[in-house]
Amino acid sequence: MSPQETIWVDCAVAREWALALVRRLMVPEEDARLFIDALIHADLRGVDTHGLRFLPIYVKRLELGLIARNGSLKILREGLSFALIDGNNLLGHVVAHKAMEIAIQKAHASGLAAVGVRNSNHCGMMAHYTLLAAEASCIGIALSNTPPLMAPWGGATALLGTNPLSIAVPGGEGHSIVLDMATSEVARAKIIAASQRKEKIPTTWGLDPAGIPTDDPDEALKGTVSPMSKHKGSGAAMMIDILCALLTGAASLNEVGDLLSFTESDKQNLGHFFQAIHIEHFVSLKEFRRRIDRFVRAIRTSRLASGVEKIRLPGDRSRETEEERKKRGIPLSVSLRAQLKELGDKYGVPLPF
Amino acid sequence: MSPQETIWVDCAVAREWALALVRRLMVPEEDARLFIDALIHADLRGVDTHGLRFLPIYVKRLELGLIARNGSLKILREGLSFALIDGNNLLGHVVAHKAMEIAIQKAHASGLAAVGVRNSNHCGMMAHYTLLAAEASCIGIALSNTPPLMAPWGGATALLGTNPLSIAVPGGEGHSIVLDMATSEVARAKIIAASQRKEKIPTTWGLDPAGIPTDDPDEALKGTVSPMSKHKGSGAAMMIDILCALLTGAASLNEVGDLLSFTESDKQNLGHFFQAIHIEHFVSLKEFRRRIDRFVRAIRTSRLASGVEKIRLPGDRSRETEEERKKRGIPLSVSLRAQLKELGDKYGVPLPF
Repeated sequence: MSPQETIWVDCAVAREWALALVRRLMVPEEDARLFIDALIHADLRGVDTHGLRFLPIYVKRLELGLIARNGSLKILREGLSFALIDGNNLLGHVVAHKAMEIAIQKAHASGLAAVGVRNSNHCGMMAHYTLLAAEASCIGIALSNTPPLMAPWGGATALLGTNPLSIAVPGGEGHSIVLDMATSEVARAKIIAASQRKEKIPTTWGLDPAGIPTDDPDEALKGTVSPMSKHKGSGAAMMIDILCALLTGAASLNEVGDLLSFTESDKQNLGHFFQAIHIEHFVSLKEFRRRIDRFVRAIRTSRLASGVEKIRLPGDRSRETEEERKKRGIPLSVSLRAQLKELGDKYGVPLPF
Repeated sequence: MSPQETIWVDCAVAREWALALVRRLMVPEEDARLFIDALIHADLRGVDTHGLRFLPIYVKRLELGLIARNGSLKILREGLSFALIDGNNLLGHVVAHKAMEIAIQKAHASGLAAVGVRNSNHCGMMAHYTLLAAEASCIGIALSNTPPLMAPWGGATALLGTNPLSIAVPGGEGHSIVLDMATSEVARAKIIAASQRKEKIPTTWGLDPAGIPTDDPDEALKGTVSPMSKHKGSGAAMMIDILCALLTGAASLNEVGDLLSFTESDKQNLGHFFQAIHIEHFVSLKEFRRRIDRFVRAIRTSRLASGVEKIRLPGDRSRETEEERKKRGIPLSVSLRAQLKELGDKYGVPLPF
């Protein structure tokens, strides 16, 4: 994106405007905050694909009743260390936040807990939820399935989501370490970007419609995204689908509704799996913090590969981006701004940027 | 390996001989069985690197006291859904088996459970333990750290293990699905094999001593094994080390003792993390089995990539190998046979093959 095509908006200003908009859609105040905070957090961390960019999509789904405006999570089954939750087709960000909070509460009481979720929707950046756990002295794990984009290894039809995985760990004196990755080799957005720039792609990124690795981004876009490390990412995506969907009763594989289709049958019924492990139940938090600091230091100070300036731990780059964007603002494309302006006009909440 | 260099041995014959040998080393009967069954299972499933091939190494470590011959696991902390265990420096296979059994028992009672382990040793094929869970109507998860072989992404020094991950899921009418993968792009053994055949390797497999991707297997062997999908495998290996070592009090990163070094300071103090999720606590097992059968069928019958004969699910190839080797026997190289014969002679248990 060239600078001319981007505007930078203060995150507090963007947040207030988006909150006002979502209130007009009759989303309850608490849910509106959880939802918009998740989007803004993604924009701050540089995960722009999971930020305000999809707000027009979520609004359209709310308008059409493909996502429920209000209601409550239903706890279908629970024990001291687990729960099965029906997300009641609420906003995925709201469902995910509340489900992870339940996992954290149960973990604080009993050492660890897992919460399976059915009947949810796209919940954006998974690190948003695992960081909640890390801030509560837990190791947080979050999994979700997604609409199909990848073929199982050996296949040529998209059956598997790019099913993401996030794990966050509290830092010692330093920051939390947070892994947040899809099980595809790269995000489909990278292939789209290469196509727009008319550049070739590495043959590890995508398969053509016949299931053959290709260096042509347009062929890959007609075909499927490649799983990370071939059969490994394919197998990991299957296991995430099993945990998120078969263990919970959510939609699995190509049963998952497409976020970008808008007929009644396109309700997503996504599944998630959240887990929190309360560190203090296993080892003293003080000792854990001392060792995690040493762990981080050992990695950061280890010998650099030729040409590398520094070794980053998982989440470092997103945190650097967040620190920068808290000052500079979040970038919005001119075309996204136009879409947001239209939404604001429709709901009587004029865009202040 | 050419056929001339391999002998095929009936697995029951190999098992009885190996058991008799380990009894002479004063390993208690139950532990001897758990240990040898794990090795034979690996040989049957085609994971030859974790089978009888390392028996001479384990015996040497037992002889030197680097692995304890007998003793008990100590439960340091526990709750309904978790335990922290000191493996008491026993054989890793024994520790891992017993730890997973504790996780399964607790999961049956409370829905899910995790067991962290410190002070253990190399425990071989992780699928051996997750399959125990799957056979007990649980989803099983097993993680271990290992001695360092990979550089953190951006680095050039081996700090991280190839820290493996296994997840097993009970099948419906079909077999269990079992993922068992290292977080490296490929096993180091593959790079060694390419070097022996004087073949180039893909540049994704290894880094030279300066941390640069190389197609020369000898340079990669002097350098480090590449993490799966670059930063993704590096991050995943870090998270596995944190769960296995920092959460448990085991050795972390390059503190982990080398299996192939034999001084007093080379006790491994490996860490593991086992988890079992009892399916029936979440959804009915009948419904789960019905859906897993449909899941497997959807994947197996989906359109094949050009040139592919069939789509395999995780664990399929190992199971096919196991069925074949139960009939044909397990393959041992002539040089391994010579080592085993020497051991048998030393302990008065002549090799019957």
